[in-house]
Amino acid sequence: MLIVMNRDATKEQLDAVIRTVELQGYTAHPIPGGDRTSIGVLYNQGAVDDALFRTLPGVKETIAVTKPYKLVSREFHPSDTVIHVGEVVIGGEQLVIIGGPCAVESEEQVMTIAKHVKIAGGDILRGGAFKPRTSPYAFHGLGEEGLKILAKAKAAFGLPIVTEVMDLDCFDMVEDYADIIQIGTRNMQNFSLLRRAGHAGKPILLKRGMSATVDEWLMAAEYIMTEGNPDVILCERGVRTFVKHSRNTLDLSAVPVVRRESHLPIIVDPSHAAGYRDQVMPLARAAAAVSAHGLMIEVHHAPESARCDGGQSLLPDQFEILCRQMRAIFDVSTSTKS
Amino acid sequence: MLIVMNRDATKEQLDAVIRTVELQGYTAHPIPGGDRTSIGVLYNQGAVDDALFRTLPGVKETIAVTKPYKLVSREFHPSDTVIHVGEVVIGGEQLVIIGGPCAVESEEQVMTIAKHVKIAGGDILRGGAFKPRTSPYAFHGLGEEGLKILAKAKAAFGLPIVTEVMDLDCFDMVEDYADIIQIGTRNMQNFSLLRRAGHAGKPILLKRGMSATVDEWLMAAEYIMTEGNPDVILCERGVRTFVKHSRNTLDLSAVPVVRRESHLPIIVDPSHAAGYRDQVMPLARAAAAVSAHGLMIEVHHAPESARCDGGQSLLPDQFEILCRQMRAIFDVSTSTKS
Amino acid sequence: MLIVMNRDATKEQLDAVIRTVELQGYTAHPIPGGDRTSIGVLYNQGAVDDALFRTLPGVKETIAVTKPYKLVSREFHPSDTVIHVGEVVIGGEQLVIIGGPCAVESEEQVMTIAKHVKIAGGDILRGGAFKPRTSPYAFHGLGEEGLKILAKAKAAFGLPIVTEVMDLDCFDMVEDYADIIQIGTRNMQNFSLLRRAGHAGKPILLKRGMSATVDEWLMAAEYIMTEGNPDVILCERGVRTFVKHSRNTLDLSAVPVVRRESHLPIIVDPSHAAGYRDQVMPLARAAAAVSAHGLMIEVHHAPESARCDGGQSLLPDQFEILCRQMRAIFDVSTSTKS
Amino acid sequence: MLIVMNRDATKEQLDAVIRTVELQGYTAHPIPGGDRTSIGVLYNQGAVDDALFRTLPGVKETIAVTKPYKLVSREFHPSDTVIHVGEVVIGGEQLVIIGGPCAVESEEQVMTIAKHVKIAGGDILRGGAFKPRTSPYAFHGLGEEGLKILAKAKAAFGLPIVTEVMDLDCFDMVEDYADIIQIGTRNMQNFSLLRRAGHAGKPILLKRGMSATVDEWLMAAEYIMTEGNPDVILCERGVRTFVKHSRNTLDLSAVPVVRRESHLPIIVDPSHAAGYRDQVMPLARAAAAVSAHGLMIEVHHAPESARCDGGQSLLPDQFEILCRQMRAIFDVSTSTKS
Repeated sequence: MLIVMNRDATKEQLDAVIRTVELQGYTAHPIPGGDRTSIGVLYNQGAVDDALFRTLPGVKETIAVTKPYKLVSREFHPSDTVIHVGEVVIGGEQLVIIGGPCAVESEEQVMTIAKHVKIAGGDILRGGAFKPRTSPYAFHGLGEEGLKILAKAKAAFGLPIVTEVMDLDCFDMVEDYADIIQIGTRNMQNFSLLRRAGHAGKPILLKRGMSATVDEWLMAAEYIMTEGNPDVILCERGVRTFVKHSRNTLDLSAVPVVRRESHLPIIVDPSHAAGYRDQVMPLARAAAAVSAHGLMIEVHHAPESARCDGGQSLLPDQFEILCRQMRAIFDVSTSTKS
Repeated sequence: MLIVMNRDATKEQLDAVIRTVELQGYTAHPIPGGDRTSIGVLYNQGAVDDALFRTLPGVKETIAVTKPYKLVSREFHPSDTVIHVGEVVIGGEQLVIIGGPCAVESEEQVMTIAKHVKIAGGDILRGGAFKPRTSPYAFHGLGEEGLKILAKAKAAFGLPIVTEVMDLDCFDMVEDYADIIQIGTRNMQNFSLLRRAGHAGKPILLKRGMSATVDEWLMAAEYIMTEGNPDVILCERGVRTFVKHSRNTLDLSAVPVVRRESHLPIIVDPSHAAGYRDQVMPLARAAAAVSAHGLMIEVHHAPESARCDGGQSLLPDQFEILCRQMRAIFDVSTSTKS
Repeated sequence: MLIVMNRDATKEQLDAVIRTVELQGYTAHPIPGGDRTSIGVLYNQGAVDDALFRTLPGVKETIAVTKPYKLVSREFHPSDTVIHVGEVVIGGEQLVIIGGPCAVESEEQVMTIAKHVKIAGGDILRGGAFKPRTSPYAFHGLGEEGLKILAKAKAAFGLPIVTEVMDLDCFDMVEDYADIIQIGTRNMQNFSLLRRAGHAGKPILLKRGMSATVDEWLMAAEYIMTEGNPDVILCERGVRTFVKHSRNTLDLSAVPVVRRESHLPIIVDPSHAAGYRDQVMPLARAAAAVSAHGLMIEVHHAPESARCDGGQSLLPDQFEILCRQMRAIFDVSTSTKS
Repeated sequence: MLIVMNRDATKEQLDAVIRTVELQGYTAHPIPGGDRTSIGVLYNQGAVDDALFRTLPGVKETIAVTKPYKLVSREFHPSDTVIHVGEVVIGGEQLVIIGGPCAVESEEQVMTIAKHVKIAGGDILRGGAFKPRTSPYAFHGLGEEGLKILAKAKAAFGLPIVTEVMDLDCFDMVEDYADIIQIGTRNMQNFSLLRRAGHAGKPILLKRGMSATVDEWLMAAEYIMTEGNPDVILCERGVRTFVKHSRNTLDLSAVPVVRRESHLPIIVDPSHAAGYRDQVMPLARAAAAVSAHGLMIEVHHAPESARCDGGQSLLPDQFEILCRQMRAIFDVSTSTKS
């Protein structure tokens, strides 16, 4: 952290700031400047509480310098993390496509959609058995029955499964069935759940919180990694802004930023970002164009009778066209890069 | 919900929309307009998935009409909910002031601060024993030891206690010690935790999520109420915006909006909204001026050595002045209202 | 507009609302619902002031229904607007690429960059002679001298020119030199400037305001069109959000939304959205992937000595690679669409 | 500015950064740190383009340090600016209350409202003769006729007048009539208008832009001051956020921040922030509670027939009660401060 003093700060004020820095166990490094002095704070572990210094007499402002994360940082781990799920490789040179329904509704529904995902060239099957919903009156998923249906689809089509875990209570059960365990947007800072995920033997797909900065998101991944699980896949799904024409605003600049800051793979969920089917296809192509490592897309063969998010699900035909477009765009985007 | 058709929508398109409405089990009510037809969707339970209709041919847009909540709504429960905690009344004609440290650090610290809170005229003591922190490397609270310290302070000064619950695992323990159980910002949509809170025998203080709309916040309260706990206190604590000069932007307009929409009491936490001590006092006074039912404010006698949020904690002297100012402002604000 | 009444609204309250609607010269159309009555407001011109009704007794809320724009609307003008600028066609089946420096600095600079833009396959040359800058101490452009330099580059390389107009005073001069007149983000709701642009004999490139909704942006275009100029090109350039890792958040969902709502062409400026060179290339590819009609990109052969926005300008080599990538992606994105 | 290098940055990379800093005419000051080196950039005038450095090899990130403004800064001008308008003092120890209609509609309307403002104890009369409106089809004000009506009200009731200037063309005329010239939200970065305001012989009331940071707002004031006009009054009026229940989110923390950063007076407009009458009174009281120097509030005796913003205008009785409340709250808030 950098503490910037007022132009007319006194020697006493400067000394008091230095003492407060040292009281916290850090080292203070004064830097004389053009018209004011700044004080560097060194050897801190994690983030420093800037408010502590900002209110001291003579202090103009405080500025965070070092990033608070370590294990997720590319500085500490320069080469890309590559995660193997069955024969699927996430974080490598290929675009990974995850498709499937928002919620598992019935065996027939999942088998039908899984077949379409397979034919279209999808790599992984998604589907929710435990659904966090804004309303207590909405459909909350089939629970273990849903997980068993996913397992059947996996057996039938050879597609690994990603499904969401909602809380500590259902974690063991989800871990038994899933190939990748998803932690949803609203749980990105459910720290107890993150710690539990750190002990899981499966990769974790960690969605970005609705209004999380990239730093906060990476810190959430750090929680998982500090507990011992190195396999975290980040998933951008749009952030909340003043914009009303889409459910969220997809922040595609997060992809190059995460690729620069971290070694972890990053995928994109355009379905929840858009909220509307006619926006999903363009945004999915855009995600391939920014060189995301993969995409997660909702597909439904009968969206008008879906029990959850039917309006943002692609029809199988649309999904098939999209898969071709995305792979072509990903190739164009990565091939000439160097 | 209202479905607005294109000006040139055909009879067939209109009929298809009506069929889709009815397929969901709702009633469709066509409304001929000046230059286009709209279709009212009636008898729906909870929110309707607008995306389902918005992508049908001939549909221009869809518009939500009825609010998705019931139990929290003033329409269903016109008179104010008033909550009794010992001798303290929340939701009545008095301003309730909650003060205390961010985190419980030691018995001496809590006893010192509790005494100041009592002297200043505070009604309730706050203090965290389980602390959700953005970084896995930060101080996460003393756990049950912290709860025991709070219990001693309660016994010594007669102040009821509010403290945060972080997850399902520690819920029973927190429920044993707390007079009011706090659910934090990052857990506002932790639905498993909300359901558990609905079975608690204590009032729940539900903080607004960092980017939650008032509707989403009230829906979170609805989760608690549907499980049987009628005593929910809402707490505005600032929302995330582009603004950088404060940690969050305190949304004081939420207070009159919640008072209009709901019968539940609403208090304000200016400490987390501001993030800086010099903003806390003005924002606290502002909260009294919008007729919030109460305030929750961080107080620390030695903020420079606090293990958490020292920079936003008021000194005891500041807190004492502030209590007088807030009560005077609350009286001015409510007395001449009618 | 739709006025939603309380469940327990009285007949008198309903009648009072209807009278207020009629006092404004509109027609009121009551719609009995499941558990409450709503009132449709018909035959209004432009937007209705909802606050007028929302505060009447018995009114629960008010909901806007019809969009306030007409001339820009696809409903009133179903076929795409196609704009011809010399031999360049904007709004057709081709991706139009605009390249050039942020600011005109010297003849040598512009001629060098223009040559690179031409070689890379760019269609139009950009460059600012009048620069709106946040700071009064920053470089504000060369004025007419800058316009003359652009004219030389146009003559030398056959590239039409787009350049920004800052105010009414310099409008005539800019109109003389420019092939397309740009109205910048900060002037999107400078209504006097919009009206003047409506009398210009050249197409207008209208950038989206930093926090403008698509409706407000289209209303700004409506200002230009009502004065008689049908040739408006919309330009998405990112919106302001809580996100800090990029200068703005590029809202790519605006492209399909505008294409649905309006017949006007829409292009994207990834340079100002990103603010950093390493984000510009991925975001530019993403814009081609969402089927924008074109892109406007900053290019500089010596960005480290640029007087404005050097850090977000691409090097000529990068721009050349990017042009190839964008055209390939645009083809993939549009070819299989039907 | 501070340039933070990667942990493994080479000596060559460091030297290249230093050269780039010096090429811009600044001084580079390397600061060895715990695990990485940072480089301070000194003696820069105004803001440094961080993107220029952030993309150099070996650079991790860049961090702005010094504020870009000078004349508006409290560091350069420690004592409060106090502005005298007739007998009214803005920026002193009294709360200044500005009231009046959104738009001037007729002589009878303005005289009626002005009388109410006077009786309620208001200090200044507001009213728009030139109205910037989102829609070209809305009422745009009476122009000079409106200014003449304001002049009559001023003569009759002894209230100074504040009214908005929309563009360069009407500036001279507005300057003739107004006691304070208002620059609206949408013109906060209309730099030509700001420069013209810098030559005006009247104080300027500068509204904050809808998504402006405090820094950008102060830079806009700096534009006015650099041209020679020292009398700038800042006006907070809410910022655009994801929140939908109010028209804008009133950012009251801006008041203590501006009072700390700048010597200029700051007032608050709760009417445009709220957008709804029932939110205006609480937010107005809140503004007094954060010790704003004044308030600007819309008042109308017949809001249901107002041609502009009737729904957010207070009735004369409400305004009178509010004036008493605000003055009492301001006294409570400022008296015990020290």
